[in-house]
Amino acid sequence: MSSGANFKQEPHRLLVIPGPIEVADDVLYANAHPSMSHVSAEFIPVLGDCIRMTRDVLLTSTGQPFIISGSGTLGWDQVASNLVEPGEDVLVLNTGYFGDSFAECLQTYGAKVDQITAEVGGVVSQADIESALKSKKYKIVTFTHVDTSTGVLSDAKAIAETVKKVSPDTLTVVDGVCSVASEEIRFDDWGIDVVLTASQKGLGTPPGLSILVASQKAIKVYENRKTPPNSYYASWKKWLPIMQAYEKGSPAYFATPPVNLIYAFHAALTRITKGSPSLSERLKLHREASQKVKAAGKELGLKQVPLDEKFAANGMSAFYFPEGVTGPDVLPRLFKKDVIVAAGLHKAMKEKYFRVGHMGISVVDEQRGDIDKVIASMKEAIEEAIQSKKL
Amino acid sequence: MSSGANFKQEPHRLLVIPGPIEVADDVLYANAHPSMSHVSAEFIPVLGDCIRMTRDVLLTSTGQPFIISGSGTLGWDQVASNLVEPGEDVLVLNTGYFGDSFAECLQTYGAKVDQITAEVGGVVSQADIESALKSKKYKIVTFTHVDTSTGVLSDAKAIAETVKKVSPDTLTVVDGVCSVASEEIRFDDWGIDVVLTASQKGLGTPPGLSILVASQKAIKVYENRKTPPNSYYASWKKWLPIMQAYEKGSPAYFATPPVNLIYAFHAALTRITKGSPSLSERLKLHREASQKVKAAGKELGLKQVPLDEKFAANGMSAFYFPEGVTGPDVLPRLFKKDVIVAAGLHKAMKEKYFRVGHMGISVVDEQRGDIDKVIASMKEAIEEAIQSKKL
Repeated sequence: MSSGANFKQEPHRLLVIPGPIEVADDVLYANAHPSMSHVSAEFIPVLGDCIRMTRDVLLTSTGQPFIISGSGTLGWDQVASNLVEPGEDVLVLNTGYFGDSFAECLQTYGAKVDQITAEVGGVVSQADIESALKSKKYKIVTFTHVDTSTGVLSDAKAIAETVKKVSPDTLTVVDGVCSVASEEIRFDDWGIDVVLTASQKGLGTPPGLSILVASQKAIKVYENRKTPPNSYYASWKKWLPIMQAYEKGSPAYFATPPVNLIYAFHAALTRITKGSPSLSERLKLHREASQKVKAAGKELGLKQVPLDEKFAANGMSAFYFPEGVTGPDVLPRLFKKDVIVAAGLHKAMKEKYFRVGHMGISVVDEQRGDIDKVIASMKEAIEEAIQSKKL
Repeated sequence: MSSGANFKQEPHRLLVIPGPIEVADDVLYANAHPSMSHVSAEFIPVLGDCIRMTRDVLLTSTGQPFIISGSGTLGWDQVASNLVEPGEDVLVLNTGYFGDSFAECLQTYGAKVDQITAEVGGVVSQADIESALKSKKYKIVTFTHVDTSTGVLSDAKAIAETVKKVSPDTLTVVDGVCSVASEEIRFDDWGIDVVLTASQKGLGTPPGLSILVASQKAIKVYENRKTPPNSYYASWKKWLPIMQAYEKGSPAYFATPPVNLIYAFHAALTRITKGSPSLSERLKLHREASQKVKAAGKELGLKQVPLDEKFAANGMSAFYFPEGVTGPDVLPRLFKKDVIVAAGLHKAMKEKYFRVGHMGISVVDEQRGDIDKVIASMKEAIEEAIQSKKL
């Protein structure tokens, strides 16, 4: 018989892709919680706490969290079907694969989408954002905080500032799937209107939760719609009363919440918002781990996908393979060393690069030695791959 | 350090609501699986097997399963956005709360919905279905196999037969959230086109999976749409290639699958399709447990919500409280006996009845003694409640 304190997950290869990430034993144990009624007095405050702690992670006092069974992708549907009405204009700042997909999602629900697409590895300039916002009235501006396909980090604070300065009615929507709890986000201070994310990256929980926080301004925009939300499952008309009820401590029903994942998320959020290190220390540790991994890449002569270190993510790195070396030369070698990294994803150069995640316990729990292991294995694998080509 | 064989979940009250249900230790342990890459060679066949075993549960050789992160509700969005185009006619056979909601979901995506609403506790007659089908050409007919709000079991076989006889192009869509693996469903034999369900009821897995099986005829109807699916997250244009890829053993990416829940579902499906008892024996055990619970209710003088035992579900029971007794008299007494049942849900008489689930391991693993415990506790609690009113 195991109890929370002595539960240890099975031995396994070190997972350092940019999500899902390594999950702590106590979080996995919470995911194995006995079945509970979703409307029970025991469970209601667990979801209530998750709502409150999600606010804490984003440094917002008035943002409205939504925690829904689904992949991170469902956050796009929430934005597209609750904040935009058919025919309204939307501006997508595109820094990779996920910008393309968010744009497609918005179009599916009837938005008219303009895109400013950065060159591969680059970001969209504030000047380009400013001139686009001056040319047309946009309902929302969206950008991918960290595009998992490129490892490019957009400057959320600067973008929100530009939007507020040039077009104050426009909502700033941040796709933070690969940034929440690994990159700095000051929701209230920066004047962000939506952050959407998922459970399996910086938040250190198994995948299966779509997590979104909307500003009260965004909620008002939703409430003032002329047409009803054009999704059913993603409709805030359904979910807002549920979130409000659970936060107040009352049961409510729309769809059965993923009870076990909520217990797991509760354990992970408790670590992040109430544990040690503090949230700001956590972010600092992510910056330091990132610098270590990127310095190791540099030493190996690997070029990063982000064109400038200034806008390289802190929770992941994307490196081009050395000249003449490909994924099949490197990834199986890392696998043999029990280290799992991710292949490329951006369609322009899928085969030419790989991605390493450095988020959550792999970064924060230094005793694990994950970052050192990643660096050492990466070094060996790349050197072996180069060597094999010379033979 | 725990391993699969000796993992035991924490002691807890017996959960006998009509879902989530009690989950077996090995299924919970699988939910605590170490983090795995969703595109890894280890994980791909796990989802592939889930797709194949889902077919086995529904006795279909050619149905196309979709296994997606989400609540059961998401299945309605899948049907509404992939099988119906805006302006098309749909017939909803309504036997309770879930019929209302499915109709609303269909309307959200533009369907024109006609409903035949049964009296509370009743079913829609074949004659009414037949005459509706003769009056108008419907794209789909939907019904709730077991409406969790009433415990009414619709005759899926007879409905599918009537549809095929009167309007062979119309698709038969079964909301099987509260019926899959607890009620008989012969997908191919009965000519059903869609069964949608969720993980946390008869399938004995924690909540968080929307599971749907579509016939090849339904897939053709989807493929012949004139307009694209009007949901993004629920779009089969996105999910069909993913399901096909994983079944073939190749990775593919649209949205990160809920990896741990898929491991848990795999463990649960293995029990159901490859374990002992067999699937047909499992259904027989559900019928027997149901008869025992219903007989105990009868002995206590409790009237069932279903108007006729012929169409009372086998995986749950819905009983009216005795005259003068209410939920607060009975449910807390059951709670004190460590038994959790569900309050009413149907808006016409929410306060007047309660619901008991008898699905999955509580039924199949007779050594647990769950059904005897439920019956004994129900008897005590009802008698105590009646007694307290007399004082």
